[in-house]
Amino acid sequence: MASLSLQHSTHHFLSRALPTRSKPKPTSIRMSLQQNAPSIAVVGVTGAVGQEFLSVLSDRDFPYRSIKMLASNRSAGRRLTFENKEYVVEELTPESFDGVDIALFSAGGSISKKFGPIAVERGTIVVDNSSAFRMDEKVPLVIPEVNPEAMENIKIGMGKGAIIANPNCSTIICLMAATPLHKRAKVVRMVVSTYQAASGAGAAAMEELELQTREVLEGKPPTCKIFNQQYAFNIFSHNASVLPNGYNEEEMKMVKETRKIWNDKDIKVTATCIRVPVMRAHAESVNLQFESPLDEDTARDILKNAPGVVVIDDRESNHFPTPLEVSNKDDVAVGRIRQDLSLDGDQGLDIFVCGDQIRKGAALNAIQIAEMLL
Amino acid sequence: MASLSLQHSTHHFLSRALPTRSKPKPTSIRMSLQQNAPSIAVVGVTGAVGQEFLSVLSDRDFPYRSIKMLASNRSAGRRLTFENKEYVVEELTPESFDGVDIALFSAGGSISKKFGPIAVERGTIVVDNSSAFRMDEKVPLVIPEVNPEAMENIKIGMGKGAIIANPNCSTIICLMAATPLHKRAKVVRMVVSTYQAASGAGAAAMEELELQTREVLEGKPPTCKIFNQQYAFNIFSHNASVLPNGYNEEEMKMVKETRKIWNDKDIKVTATCIRVPVMRAHAESVNLQFESPLDEDTARDILKNAPGVVVIDDRESNHFPTPLEVSNKDDVAVGRIRQDLSLDGDQGLDIFVCGDQIRKGAALNAIQIAEMLL
Repeated sequence: MASLSLQHSTHHFLSRALPTRSKPKPTSIRMSLQQNAPSIAVVGVTGAVGQEFLSVLSDRDFPYRSIKMLASNRSAGRRLTFENKEYVVEELTPESFDGVDIALFSAGGSISKKFGPIAVERGTIVVDNSSAFRMDEKVPLVIPEVNPEAMENIKIGMGKGAIIANPNCSTIICLMAATPLHKRAKVVRMVVSTYQAASGAGAAAMEELELQTREVLEGKPPTCKIFNQQYAFNIFSHNASVLPNGYNEEEMKMVKETRKIWNDKDIKVTATCIRVPVMRAHAESVNLQFESPLDEDTARDILKNAPGVVVIDDRESNHFPTPLEVSNKDDVAVGRIRQDLSLDGDQGLDIFVCGDQIRKGAALNAIQIAEMLL
Repeated sequence: MASLSLQHSTHHFLSRALPTRSKPKPTSIRMSLQQNAPSIAVVGVTGAVGQEFLSVLSDRDFPYRSIKMLASNRSAGRRLTFENKEYVVEELTPESFDGVDIALFSAGGSISKKFGPIAVERGTIVVDNSSAFRMDEKVPLVIPEVNPEAMENIKIGMGKGAIIANPNCSTIICLMAATPLHKRAKVVRMVVSTYQAASGAGAAAMEELELQTREVLEGKPPTCKIFNQQYAFNIFSHNASVLPNGYNEEEMKMVKETRKIWNDKDIKVTATCIRVPVMRAHAESVNLQFESPLDEDTARDILKNAPGVVVIDDRESNHFPTPLEVSNKDDVAVGRIRQDLSLDGDQGLDIFVCGDQIRKGAALNAIQIAEMLL
């Protein structure tokens, strides 16, 4: 498990607030460091997602013959320990990609826009977590459980670079649950309201939420640096820019990315994206309207058998998915599966979905994409 | 301003966390204690809503010639100060209603079911905040700005008792914004997702949220008495019982109460009710589908002119309604008003609504009903 001092406080807090239940890792046998395995690079390694890249690589025994820890000039020179080996964080430069087979990017859109094409020129396959290339027609936008076919022509060892885009966290979490139902009954319209965690705005936002909460409890005015308003004990419309049509960029990502991933320009989506004072997992209330009837029992069975999805739908004990319960977990949890009373003839369902924003919403999905390259 | 020691800690916390901006109250001239004014009683005066009844009565200079402070045997004997006069909380008995013109009830459904009819027999008009009588065909269910005509036959001084029901908090807050649009373009379907505060579950739930937050920040396991799971830094499906159709009772209140208040059995509503770690104001993401086209500019103008509604819809500075901003306020705030991309021909709108759960969601609405009786 990698850790950097700058994130110590939030990670420590999280480990208390959100008990992890990941499998114990064997330390004796470690197969991932292999001479015939790819050379990889992590761009933005000091960020929340960058750190999670390392955790997921380690958890999944992702094979590599070498790994470069890349970040901005500001973080270069820092040391971090990964799989019992010490690394020095290197400054990201064009030369960083020489000999790199796969680069995992999570350093913001402008870094991706600048260094993604440079990496491709040097033969690197970039798995990019930013929004920079998602809507580029030549770039596959992939959730491995949903549309693996979109990247079937890209493999390592072909001497050619490429970019594969990781969808936005809210899109991934929603479509993990909606796609198996879409494949059965064809979604014609989807109305989504989100409950999004601090982590989507980075480690500093998580730290700000913790700091603000302490301040408010102590009767002090809250420190508002990342967001322009109080986050502790409050919710607010997502901080992404609002576009001329009144939707914010986060909402339009869900609209446009769903169309691209489902390869259906006509799919009707509306979304309202809201931040809630939760650390690292998103929740979404999703209303689905289908072309063909789909009853809730069939839907539940479909979801129980869907890869990467777990159904938590215990009405009697009022046990349904929560952000806390999915934190640090790989699977997306779905519950509150019920026939929509406002649509006739089993044409609609309401579901409630939770997924770890840093993990399946970002790092895990990217590394699953990288695994498909091998 | 009334205060009871049992609520001191939460009230103190709230006053720090949520700066009130209510108008300063004049203390010199106090007109509400009047000999020709009604005799009133507050049932459940020690609860969160009961306390707010007193604040609102005082804020609005509600006229009364006497006021009884009623509660369960457990709270009887406590002293409280209201408008510079000391009162002793009395145990609720059938005789409590002798000579009482208006009784404001907020002591839970079972107390209302038992004592509501007793009060009516004694000639008292009951304004009931519980769900006990809301769906009773003989009982008007009233939001004064929305359907005042439903109670036009009920007045004090006619020597006849009656019950008037206060709708559920989520319904009131939603319909304050949706009704003016419904009156213009007729809502045919409404998809609602809520972000509900602790206060809906009472003062003890607010205290539990504060306590749990302190505990989690200190690395201790959270105390879970009111809810069966961690609330701090988490969200969860509303704790109301889940019915055989998969909806919980809170959601079905919104479905059924909307039909009754709008006097339209065909109105299609689906709702997903979620608790968020916020103290005292609810938020709702509301998707509206209309029979007639309604463009967003017209909708915004309609809402700007709607009584009890304030529009906060500043896209440029990303300023929209938040629970914190409406806490301790009378008006319901609406923003994120935009044409729904998923419906053709201006047939839909998305809006985001926030309202103080204790105030307009409960106490204020009840006292506005009482004002209409005068």
